[in-house]
Amino acid sequence: MSDLLSEKTPIRARHIRPGEGQAVEMKTGQLLQIQTLQGKQVADFVAFTQGDTDEFLSTSVTRATNASIVPRPGMTLYSNRRQPMFEIVEDTVGRHDMLYACCDPVRYEMLGAPGHASCRVALTEALTGYGIDYDRIPPPINWFMNVAILQRGELEIREPLAEKDDYVVLRALKDVIAAVSACPQDLVATNGSNPTDLTVRIYRDEPLPLPPMMEEEPPPAEDAAVAAPVVAANPTPRPALLQTTPEATVYRVQRSEPREPS
Amino acid sequence: MSDLLSEKTPIRARHIRPGEGQAVEMKTGQLLQIQTLQGKQVADFVAFTQGDTDEFLSTSVTRATNASIVPRPGMTLYSNRRQPMFEIVEDTVGRHDMLYACCDPVRYEMLGAPGHASCRVALTEALTGYGIDYDRIPPPINWFMNVAILQRGELEIREPLAEKDDYVVLRALKDVIAAVSACPQDLVATNGSNPTDLTVRIYRDEPLPLPPMMEEEPPPAEDAAVAAPVVAANPTPRPALLQTTPEATVYRVQRSEPREPS
Repeated sequence: MSDLLSEKTPIRARHIRPGEGQAVEMKTGQLLQIQTLQGKQVADFVAFTQGDTDEFLSTSVTRATNASIVPRPGMTLYSNRRQPMFEIVEDTVGRHDMLYACCDPVRYEMLGAPGHASCRVALTEALTGYGIDYDRIPPPINWFMNVAILQRGELEIREPLAEKDDYVVLRALKDVIAAVSACPQDLVATNGSNPTDLTVRIYRDEPLPLPPMMEEEPPPAEDAAVAAPVVAANPTPRPALLQTTPEATVYRVQRSEPREPS
Repeated sequence: MSDLLSEKTPIRARHIRPGEGQAVEMKTGQLLQIQTLQGKQVADFVAFTQGDTDEFLSTSVTRATNASIVPRPGMTLYSNRRQPMFEIVEDTVGRHDMLYACCDPVRYEMLGAPGHASCRVALTEALTGYGIDYDRIPPPINWFMNVAILQRGELEIREPLAEKDDYVVLRALKDVIAAVSACPQDLVATNGSNPTDLTVRIYRDEPLPLPPMMEEEPPPAEDAAVAAPVVAANPTPRPALLQTTPEATVYRVQRSEPREPS
């Protein structure tokens, strides 16, 4: 678990299987953790401004403004209007891609696998409710994707360096809709030829309060079962905590058995 | 003059000054030549499908499908739907960029030059008639832009290698609207710190007919003055030629003095 996040409870969590996408809304200052559960799994990532989706995360503006093709902690990620959209807060891997397009149905036709699941379709499905269609999926940041640039500018896809439980953490610098897909590419080395699951979690970027009454009177189990996020399965003993956000009231619940992710 | 184009007469030509943009329509098979007149001048280039501008030239799909960040002759340039859009037919330089965003007003504010002309605004103005606004200008191919990738992924803008009259030629693989701006960046090395003019020309991709009657009876001078394109100033002696296309009837006219570009 991240040092930064070890004392926090996520206010939302999503489990993403290969070929699936999930969209999550984030308010300014909130943190997004994207984690590969078994390692070697690429997370395609796009984002839009809430209420004004003509503004979106731009890899070309991010490369240009940072004069770099390598995402690093401390780097600001920019929109197509060259406005700050995210800051990279933590990164346990250090090898990601900002050059490749999403895999898409045509890519798989070219590989002799028509009808294969793809990140482009998964992100489109995740974002349909926001009025964002296939043509408007921007070039993604491909977290954990390992692309080597050879001497003459050739690109070579290699197995991710990310190992079990590696992650990145981004801070939203405006209110955004972020979408993540777990890349289903199993024909080349993108995901170590074996796509696996991701988890995304949203955290408040504020110190956690420790309301003393909660330690004496934990919440009823049925409420907790509704509100408890995936990481409630974390076996580390902690005092029960109450976190109230504009979106949700979240309890940390101690359990002996891991829960299925919701 | 290009070997490929030396026997051809352009059906349209545009002269572009730094900070200006021009949009040109091309039919499938037609050729687009983009030329730096004095050298060291970057041409920002975007393109859309005619009648369906939700499809556009995508640098990320082009990089991914070619597994390369370096545009080369023979390479296909792809749309955001991973459909072939252009083929690179000729290139007298070999050093171009597919990583940088257009310069834009925010970039110049960051450089302490608010209100500076920019490629993003120039391309937006050139494409307004097609319903394409600022937010929809895609990441460009920056012809003649010289970007070095350093050891840790840092990008460094250097003076273009392009010299006087260097050019690229693209063949349209579908009916497109192409737009080119002459980058006005004079604060860094992008254009050798001295932005200069570009010319774009559209050619038919067919052998030229040589109608014998035209060699005996050249067209009247007043007609020629209307129809003759920029390259009519080419001093090489040639027979007068008539080329009839769906868009225009074009005469090649011998002149002793260069004409002002229209």
